[in-house]
Amino acid sequence: MNVLLAAGGPVSKWPNLKDHYDLYVGIDRGAFFLKQKGLPLNIAIGDFDSLNTQERANIFKSVEKTVTSSAEKDNTDTQLALEFILKEHPEAKITMVGSTGGRIDHFLANFWMVLEPRFCKYSQNICLQDNQNSISFLLPGEHTVIKEEDKRYLAYCCLTPVADLTLAKSKYTLNKQQVLYPTSYASNEFISDYAEVSFSKGIIAVIQSKDS
Amino acid sequence: MNVLLAAGGPVSKWPNLKDHYDLYVGIDRGAFFLKQKGLPLNIAIGDFDSLNTQERANIFKSVEKTVTSSAEKDNTDTQLALEFILKEHPEAKITMVGSTGGRIDHFLANFWMVLEPRFCKYSQNICLQDNQNSISFLLPGEHTVIKEEDKRYLAYCCLTPVADLTLAKSKYTLNKQQVLYPTSYASNEFISDYAEVSFSKGIIAVIQSKDS
Repeated sequence: MNVLLAAGGPVSKWPNLKDHYDLYVGIDRGAFFLKQKGLPLNIAIGDFDSLNTQERANIFKSVEKTVTSSAEKDNTDTQLALEFILKEHPEAKITMVGSTGGRIDHFLANFWMVLEPRFCKYSQNICLQDNQNSISFLLPGEHTVIKEEDKRYLAYCCLTPVADLTLAKSKYTLNKQQVLYPTSYASNEFISDYAEVSFSKGIIAVIQSKDS
Repeated sequence: MNVLLAAGGPVSKWPNLKDHYDLYVGIDRGAFFLKQKGLPLNIAIGDFDSLNTQERANIFKSVEKTVTSSAEKDNTDTQLALEFILKEHPEAKITMVGSTGGRIDHFLANFWMVLEPRFCKYSQNICLQDNQNSISFLLPGEHTVIKEEDKRYLAYCCLTPVADLTLAKSKYTLNKQQVLYPTSYASNEFISDYAEVSFSKGIIAVIQSKDS
């Protein structure tokens, strides 16, 4: 099951979306952006404080399900949305848009969500995308990274200390590097249509990107 | 001494700059952007591969000092620039622009530089800014955070595990919270013109932001 999760960051940074997702989830202003783009809206989550009366009406008249978060103190709307989706669809592949290009505290909250024990085991099914970057997450093990056709650069960003980081089949390689603190191994490049990475401890974001 | 460090991210995301810096440093395309904006360019750092012949000529004819990085493999241009500045001016207050809004591997490389032992002790003198966000860094201790006039939101983003995180004089507070992994305490707000934060271990980014 493919889920599109639209957060409230600037719609101008959204990537080109593929034709169809099985479930469209909008978080606060992200729900409005889905409608604005003529896309379905199955679930809307948030307190919708950032929207005016007409925008709210536009959402509520067409959405299938609404989860309001006003009473919720300990979770962000995105955490609520992710928990809601994964509870009903633990196998879901989740593409998140609208999480970049605006407030950086919001971006980091979304970027670091995979470190929470409740989300960590699902992290390999979560991808953050915008019109220049694609961010997926890897847990310890041996992995093949498939090049996305429109991307040029490849980066391995260690969100935590990482043990035995080994990079192969890419322009720059590493052999069992011990990474002691969060580090962005940026500006690597594919040399074919895939690259290889392995590590024994920690969590890594693989970022494929292109120039603007 | 106030230093402006311009990296190569989109100039459209630059903040309003204050009138005068003592030193203007451009990294690769950032050097071109400084000239384009009619600002001084004291030092240019990079391989300048991203620029065409005329753009390069425009830089080289007016810059006071050039540091070329072609032979350098182990450092990004921004690391080189920071090391260069801090070696000559260890007390410098460094404002970095052009580090957000483009490639996220670049942003993370800049954001995480303060974790490197060689830069960590200078981290409280480094600030990343764009037109919506201001990111400064704190080391263990007791701190007062002064509200920036044009900002609304306040976030405490733990880049590492953080011990005894205590937040006061803000909308949301915490008392000796043990933070086990990188976490963005986003969307807090000032309740006066300052807030207070203390912690005993780790490193924190304080992000002040506003809606776009």
